[in-house]
Amino acid sequence: MINQRMYELGSEPSAIRELFAYGMTRKAEIGEENVFDFSLGNPSIPAPKEVHDAIIDLMELPPEQVHAYTPAQGAAGVRTAIADSLNRRFDTTYSADDLYMTVGASASLSISISAVANPGDEFIVIAPYFPEYKVFIESAECTCVEVPARLDDFQLNIEAIEDAITPRTKGVIVNSPNNPTGAVYPACDLTELANALRRKQDELGTTIYLIADEPYREIVYGGPSVPWIPSLYENTFVCYSYSKSLSLPGERIGYILVPPAMKDARRVYAAVCGAGRALGFVCAPALFQSVIERCVDAPCDVEAYRANREALYEGLTNLGYECVPPQGAFYLWVRALEPDAKAFSETAKAYELLVVPSDSFGVEGWVRIGYCVSHETIVNSLPAFAELMREYQYKIAK
Amino acid sequence: MINQRMYELGSEPSAIRELFAYGMTRKAEIGEENVFDFSLGNPSIPAPKEVHDAIIDLMELPPEQVHAYTPAQGAAGVRTAIADSLNRRFDTTYSADDLYMTVGASASLSISISAVANPGDEFIVIAPYFPEYKVFIESAECTCVEVPARLDDFQLNIEAIEDAITPRTKGVIVNSPNNPTGAVYPACDLTELANALRRKQDELGTTIYLIADEPYREIVYGGPSVPWIPSLYENTFVCYSYSKSLSLPGERIGYILVPPAMKDARRVYAAVCGAGRALGFVCAPALFQSVIERCVDAPCDVEAYRANREALYEGLTNLGYECVPPQGAFYLWVRALEPDAKAFSETAKAYELLVVPSDSFGVEGWVRIGYCVSHETIVNSLPAFAELMREYQYKIAK
Repeated sequence: MINQRMYELGSEPSAIRELFAYGMTRKAEIGEENVFDFSLGNPSIPAPKEVHDAIIDLMELPPEQVHAYTPAQGAAGVRTAIADSLNRRFDTTYSADDLYMTVGASASLSISISAVANPGDEFIVIAPYFPEYKVFIESAECTCVEVPARLDDFQLNIEAIEDAITPRTKGVIVNSPNNPTGAVYPACDLTELANALRRKQDELGTTIYLIADEPYREIVYGGPSVPWIPSLYENTFVCYSYSKSLSLPGERIGYILVPPAMKDARRVYAAVCGAGRALGFVCAPALFQSVIERCVDAPCDVEAYRANREALYEGLTNLGYECVPPQGAFYLWVRALEPDAKAFSETAKAYELLVVPSDSFGVEGWVRIGYCVSHETIVNSLPAFAELMREYQYKIAK
Repeated sequence: MINQRMYELGSEPSAIRELFAYGMTRKAEIGEENVFDFSLGNPSIPAPKEVHDAIIDLMELPPEQVHAYTPAQGAAGVRTAIADSLNRRFDTTYSADDLYMTVGASASLSISISAVANPGDEFIVIAPYFPEYKVFIESAECTCVEVPARLDDFQLNIEAIEDAITPRTKGVIVNSPNNPTGAVYPACDLTELANALRRKQDELGTTIYLIADEPYREIVYGGPSVPWIPSLYENTFVCYSYSKSLSLPGERIGYILVPPAMKDARRVYAAVCGAGRALGFVCAPALFQSVIERCVDAPCDVEAYRANREALYEGLTNLGYECVPPQGAFYLWVRALEPDAKAFSETAKAYELLVVPSDSFGVEGWVRIGYCVSHETIVNSLPAFAELMREYQYKIAK
């Protein structure tokens, strides 16, 4: 018998993957410009020129140096560059020793969870949530405890989080700016969450880790800045990836920060190294470690996303759709026009609109529209969204 | 409490890492040319020019295309290129659907093991063996069963393997060309092993997977060719990496082949996809998938290793050391001059010779000398090996 869980994980239908595959087929049938594919989170803006130039420069160095193994935690140079950058931006005093380079955000998460989890522990996630959280939590033989976000604005419901904490709670995963809702958690709420976690730690005599999944940190559109969570709560892992900020999703490069203020930080850091080893990671890709060392402060150009966000939010709101105003990331969270989001997503397909039903993220009745697409796609999709709305208005009128 | 196993894996002393760190310090003290560091398996020959040229070419393409997510199993292009290359070389009929791109050989192994393992299963390894096998086996909550290689030539002891098979045996890991001994397993022995595994499968009513860990496939020095194991035994995973053949160890790029002749091959392939997902791998690094697509048949230049191998083997044999003649990979397996290989390795340090004691690989009394170093290092080290031998001869004479 092979491993049944792995078989199921590898063969279970994924709404996102299925929509994407459908979109590929449909584009081949009727032309790419006629399908409005909002299914994915693949950045549409190119990596900044600094990345290209860094790669070209690195190709001048001896290849046996550029492509060599790095230490498991990453080369000292890139870790120092990241620590320095964080210190400049967040007024902190991190060193290279606090950072562990990873093969992207998913690796950051699976490693952080595995480092601290013992079988039977619980991790709290805020629904709607990125579905792989549950996969990584269950891989560590732990329980994924879903706590709904506030239903009006999809911000943290801190009381509900505190109520969900038990003696088995090992961690809380927060993702701000949020995939799929676009919410950014303000400092006041995160401070309140930190206080709640400290209260519970004291009451239960446990350690509760906050796992801050932050690939969208730089993708914000004014409004509240994105608070630096380790400065608010000491037991925070920062799980970062350059997939979105530098448009390098396929290159799998990110990091884990284990802040020195974390309880038993050096032991936890060792467990992070151990978890990376146990899962089969040897080191993060070497060339891109060197690229990040050179591009750590390359600006993230969010203007294209901002224009998309405005056109889409205004366009859909004007048509009568209920949308959560996105403060960050590149997703619009829109109420489905019927309670069954999957049925709504199916109906939308008839108008060549590919939107992800919220069931994929653990809640019902909404869809995620990824606006990391061309601006033309946004503009050209609005008449189709108008027709979709008319179909539902007609149904209701009948 | 954090996870104790992860903490231990991340903090346990590793003879290889410690030797390497000692070497770095020592080189800073007395000059790089005065330390003979044979501790690592980091290829000393540069990646072939084809790799450089492919990267430069890819930098001409739109970055949002080059660096995009690929499907979890890898881009169709590189998988097709690899299947075609294998078919040309081994007279097989694989397709892209039989291949799953990985983040290097360790990922290939951890994913293959996790895909088929259930808690309590057993995996057989041939001692001496790459120490991470045990880590990945234990991560899947299985037992690592060590079967010694034949003591004269470090070839497979097939009778001992067959005797070690129980109803719980899920797999046997073989590594040819071998790290650390340099042995290459001939077709006759692998055929005999295949027959033994089939006998046991029939007898026990189980499926036993052969996991062929093959990063050194192309690094051979004449003598027997490296047989294509899936053509001898149907339930074979091939775990490959380009770390050694293209000198890209830091870039983490390899693959798993699930041959269509494997029992329930499509289900196993799905489990491989699921295991990759569960462990936190999203896709293999995208740029290097494209590089491999273009360089799949780039020649592996083993001439530098061949020259090192000859100088080292002849040099040490002439000095009276007992060495296993290496048929492949870039390691020489040498009998320590006292039973305690760790003590011998310590003594060798006084002569600036850094050699890895065999205890790291699950056997006693030998050392591994990695000859993927400059030829100068080999030549200049021989007088030090001569002095080391004299010290032991003097001790014995006393």
